[in-house]
Amino acid sequence: MSQQVASPLAAFLVPVPRPLDLTLAGAIEQKINQKTKPLGALGQLEDLARQVALVQQTLTPTLRQPHLLVFAADHGLAAEGVSAYPPDVTHQMVRNFAAGGAAINVFCRLHGLTLRVIDAGVRGSFADLPAVRDQKIAEGTRNALYGPAMSAAECAQALRLGAAAVDEVAAAGCNVLGLGEMGIGNTSAAALLLHCLTGHPLAECVGRGTGLDAAGLARKQAVLAAAVAAHPGLDRADPLAVLATFGGFEIAQLTGAMLRAAELGMLLLIDGFIASAALLVAWRLAGDAVLPYCVFSHESAEGGHPHLLRVFGARPLLRLGLRLGEGTGCALAYPLLQAAVAFLNEMASFESAGVAGGGE
Amino acid sequence: MSQQVASPLAAFLVPVPRPLDLTLAGAIEQKINQKTKPLGALGQLEDLARQVALVQQTLTPTLRQPHLLVFAADHGLAAEGVSAYPPDVTHQMVRNFAAGGAAINVFCRLHGLTLRVIDAGVRGSFADLPAVRDQKIAEGTRNALYGPAMSAAECAQALRLGAAAVDEVAAAGCNVLGLGEMGIGNTSAAALLLHCLTGHPLAECVGRGTGLDAAGLARKQAVLAAAVAAHPGLDRADPLAVLATFGGFEIAQLTGAMLRAAELGMLLLIDGFIASAALLVAWRLAGDAVLPYCVFSHESAEGGHPHLLRVFGARPLLRLGLRLGEGTGCALAYPLLQAAVAFLNEMASFESAGVAGGGE
Repeated sequence: MSQQVASPLAAFLVPVPRPLDLTLAGAIEQKINQKTKPLGALGQLEDLARQVALVQQTLTPTLRQPHLLVFAADHGLAAEGVSAYPPDVTHQMVRNFAAGGAAINVFCRLHGLTLRVIDAGVRGSFADLPAVRDQKIAEGTRNALYGPAMSAAECAQALRLGAAAVDEVAAAGCNVLGLGEMGIGNTSAAALLLHCLTGHPLAECVGRGTGLDAAGLARKQAVLAAAVAAHPGLDRADPLAVLATFGGFEIAQLTGAMLRAAELGMLLLIDGFIASAALLVAWRLAGDAVLPYCVFSHESAEGGHPHLLRVFGARPLLRLGLRLGEGTGCALAYPLLQAAVAFLNEMASFESAGVAGGGE
Repeated sequence: MSQQVASPLAAFLVPVPRPLDLTLAGAIEQKINQKTKPLGALGQLEDLARQVALVQQTLTPTLRQPHLLVFAADHGLAAEGVSAYPPDVTHQMVRNFAAGGAAINVFCRLHGLTLRVIDAGVRGSFADLPAVRDQKIAEGTRNALYGPAMSAAECAQALRLGAAAVDEVAAAGCNVLGLGEMGIGNTSAAALLLHCLTGHPLAECVGRGTGLDAAGLARKQAVLAAAVAAHPGLDRADPLAVLATFGGFEIAQLTGAMLRAAELGMLLLIDGFIASAALLVAWRLAGDAVLPYCVFSHESAEGGHPHLLRVFGARPLLRLGLRLGEGTGCALAYPLLQAAVAFLNEMASFESAGVAGGGE
């Protein structure tokens, strides 16, 4: 199920997910419509139940060993003042994850997801923290104003390591995976990916990130425009070239993780703007077959995210004005996924409950 | 905290909730803003955390013994063919609730809410089902085409019994309450309440309910217009008169339950169109002080609900296209309430985690 991508950059076998087998679709529809409720009355939860059943190829799906992987990395562009927070915060927040004090820790504990924290390329060492998995490619990417953020070899290595992290949770029996990130400067990287891979106007791809004011946003816009201008020869049709030029190590590892998870037939919870940018790269690499494995957990308040969701034709489960990343949207949406599976498995049918069906 | 309403219909002491004491607002804001996240990055969850802390008057709120009460009743107007389902389905669905097979059973089990099923006025007996609480006012309301749906005494009794059901769960230590309903024909009752109490055009208050087709919707519109025309002398400024004329026993018990729960300082999860119509009556009776206790769980796909939410200025947590009632939106939104409380109590502060604050 893997294919070699014809890119000068790629020494990476792109996992290609199987297109969904739709044979069961009719039986799933019938099961949903026999539940003791008006036709369609559970709205988006019914779509979700259909999706889970098709991904798992069964009328009685189950969610097993849910995990959330948070990939963290630093960004060379952060030196240009594109964030309201100093770059050291990436390292500090990884320590906060390891200590259990961040929002994603709280939400994973609350909803029963196992959290794994992965150093994909953060400046500084976590040798004292065994809970942080070492997948460090380098001490942050390079500044994309002056060259590609990463080399082709680094990019391929990041994709491979992202996939390897998924192999490990799959071996633990996981079939539903949330994917999050932390990296000061990474809304800039995501905005550049969205702009280059879709042609969407740069100004609409750029948002306030962690909370820039109007002057900060103007500066971020100018820096990103300069970064685009610094790479006039970039082949925008080559997703790996774009990823290496403007991406981050956490984004590349997310992309590798998404591709492997979809290839393994897992359900994937997609978080906000940065995770969605990683999915955009995965989609351009592996094609439409990756999307049916994805559950879009929320629409972020970060500027570019609604545009990116439209590219996918996605209708996310939550719109709560979140703009935190870390996979928080995945963890918050997970109970809705549980609810979709539970109603499909546990609700009575009109016949079993002795309830009269609808008149129409 | 109770006041006698000057209505010829009312022999009911309306519980009047205390206006929220805002003394703690500054300390709550400070606690939220010191959490390790950008300012405002948890969006609506931050508003929810503020609300819960103010309702409970503490910086460390807790959700105790969450309950969901489902009130069920039959409607005289259902004889006019205003629903896609036959009236017997109310009785059958109460049996389904008692057997644990309905959507609300599944979602309450999943998310840890205790479900209580209340017969507020269903046709037929549940004497064989001890799990169904008997608060039956009558075997359904009368047909509002030919007179008021209930008498003044029945209306007052329904309000009292709804309040009594809340007293009981409060005695069990409950401080967060979801309220749902079941009643074939009750979107018609809710539409009439919305129209009469707000003046919103009747056509926009009426929706497809459990799934009417275009012809069924046209018939429902005509029946409801005739019901309005049948009561030319109705005093629309008297919420109890409007409730008695067009409401249902489950709606009146919901109204009584909401008023008592707010008076007791509980958090109230408001479900869809019918529950919101009951809240509209409660609001007109008790004034603005009731609203700060309410968490609007979702925006229903039923036609009139978005209009009704606008009347309250409400921004619901979920928009999943649900149109099932039973309190399902409350149960599905409950994990978000848990998440709001959990982040407020459990997340580290910038200081405790050694993370640098934002630059702005």
